[in-house]
Amino acid sequence: MGGGLPLMEKIEGVLIDLDGTIWRGNELIPQADEAVAYLRSLGKRLVFVSNRGNWSRRMCHEQLRRFGIAVAEEEIILSSTVTAQFLRAHYPLCQVWTLGDEGLHEELQHYQVPLAPVPEEADFLVITLHETMTYRDLDLAFRAVHHGARMIATNIDKMFPNEHGNAIDVAGMVGAIEAATARKVEVVLGKPSCFMAEAALRQLKVPPDLCLVIGDSVQSDIRMGRMYGMKTALVLTGNTKRSQLDMLREKERPDYVIDSIYDIIGLGKGVMW
Amino acid sequence: MGGGLPLMEKIEGVLIDLDGTIWRGNELIPQADEAVAYLRSLGKRLVFVSNRGNWSRRMCHEQLRRFGIAVAEEEIILSSTVTAQFLRAHYPLCQVWTLGDEGLHEELQHYQVPLAPVPEEADFLVITLHETMTYRDLDLAFRAVHHGARMIATNIDKMFPNEHGNAIDVAGMVGAIEAATARKVEVVLGKPSCFMAEAALRQLKVPPDLCLVIGDSVQSDIRMGRMYGMKTALVLTGNTKRSQLDMLREKERPDYVIDSIYDIIGLGKGVMW
Repeated sequence: MGGGLPLMEKIEGVLIDLDGTIWRGNELIPQADEAVAYLRSLGKRLVFVSNRGNWSRRMCHEQLRRFGIAVAEEEIILSSTVTAQFLRAHYPLCQVWTLGDEGLHEELQHYQVPLAPVPEEADFLVITLHETMTYRDLDLAFRAVHHGARMIATNIDKMFPNEHGNAIDVAGMVGAIEAATARKVEVVLGKPSCFMAEAALRQLKVPPDLCLVIGDSVQSDIRMGRMYGMKTALVLTGNTKRSQLDMLREKERPDYVIDSIYDIIGLGKGVMW
Repeated sequence: MGGGLPLMEKIEGVLIDLDGTIWRGNELIPQADEAVAYLRSLGKRLVFVSNRGNWSRRMCHEQLRRFGIAVAEEEIILSSTVTAQFLRAHYPLCQVWTLGDEGLHEELQHYQVPLAPVPEEADFLVITLHETMTYRDLDLAFRAVHHGARMIATNIDKMFPNEHGNAIDVAGMVGAIEAATARKVEVVLGKPSCFMAEAALRQLKVPPDLCLVIGDSVQSDIRMGRMYGMKTALVLTGNTKRSQLDMLREKERPDYVIDSIYDIIGLGKGVMW
């Protein structure tokens, strides 16, 4: 292992994205496990911060363990986690209906968010990615809002890469319900929101200027870091291609561009703006 | 003055809406000033809570004084106030561009929210009602989002009553920018959100179950009260007509329906569900 970015001496906490940074679909990004181990060996505090709202922490924890990456469950912060914490903290009396995969449901239950027995009784509809969605799921969600439920979304990504190219993401589910009800989502919890950033900072217990964000998304990872005065490193193993870098606006520019998270170890390939 | 609703003995804090409850346009709703004086004479703690995002507290304070209603500025909580507090608390490093009337700007400046010198440098676009909007204002707001600003809205009301009937409200401004940019508003601050409710509760320093909400809107006033376990009284001097009451869903029903805020003094006209 190399000498590490000189930057690393000034960093105490690292926020690490998952999809496109640690794994792609069901495959570990080469040597991402070694990069995490390296950061641990330097004694950095770590938190894994992902916009996945259709998974629970438990599911994510298992996936990381399968890839040989040891983490505590508290070191994982998903948009489903933050959504559940938000509802629990601010609307403890409110009943929730969901449009999304099972992981969201599990996370809401973990935080004891009251779930509505039928959509008509829901105070909130929570929307996330629903990869097994049927017309019936969509219709039940519509009924919740049609009967007065307010809408929140774990995140608002339009598409995500899968084995076929790009797949429709949460924005599609949100669009369906908004168009049919003429109502709007009121809060989006995912990165780059303050809700995710502050949950990560609370877990890290490190001031923002001593933090580094590592992620593949300019809009969620780099923006969040920039908005909080954190250092930022963009990896090219996910959403962003090298050819897109020239088009970045000033407020979207990372401090470092590296081919993959493994390069956090070395120096050579890091491009500093 | 009458004996007061028996309910009043159990109430320590009162949240009072403005448009449609205290005034309509430039006119005081008859005896609304006496109703406020009555609540003060009972020693209740009061807070005026309005979704107006295009006014500042100062402007609102003047209007109340013009109507002979004495309040402290801290007793006024507007969606512009809460938006400014939200940005200041969670995004202190971020620069803001606005689409909205001057009052929003004034409120942001009062809370020392950094304002972007040009739309292209904004981290956030804040949208509220803009009654003097021109194409140029809309285009500057578009440019902010087109260059990467995220969007938040003070509220998302579709229309409001004025002297011509119904007038287009914030939802129209939001719709223009969303349609042109394919981006979405991420946070709506106005009632019935937790941001407004919790700002009011912090000012009142009274637990929710000892609070009464008085307002004309089922969707913002009554819903907010119900979501927090407050008592609720719907007035018929604004948005809601008596003929609409039968169509209310269970979660929208107020504890009391009164013709106007003045009836808070008496008993006779209050309909309890």
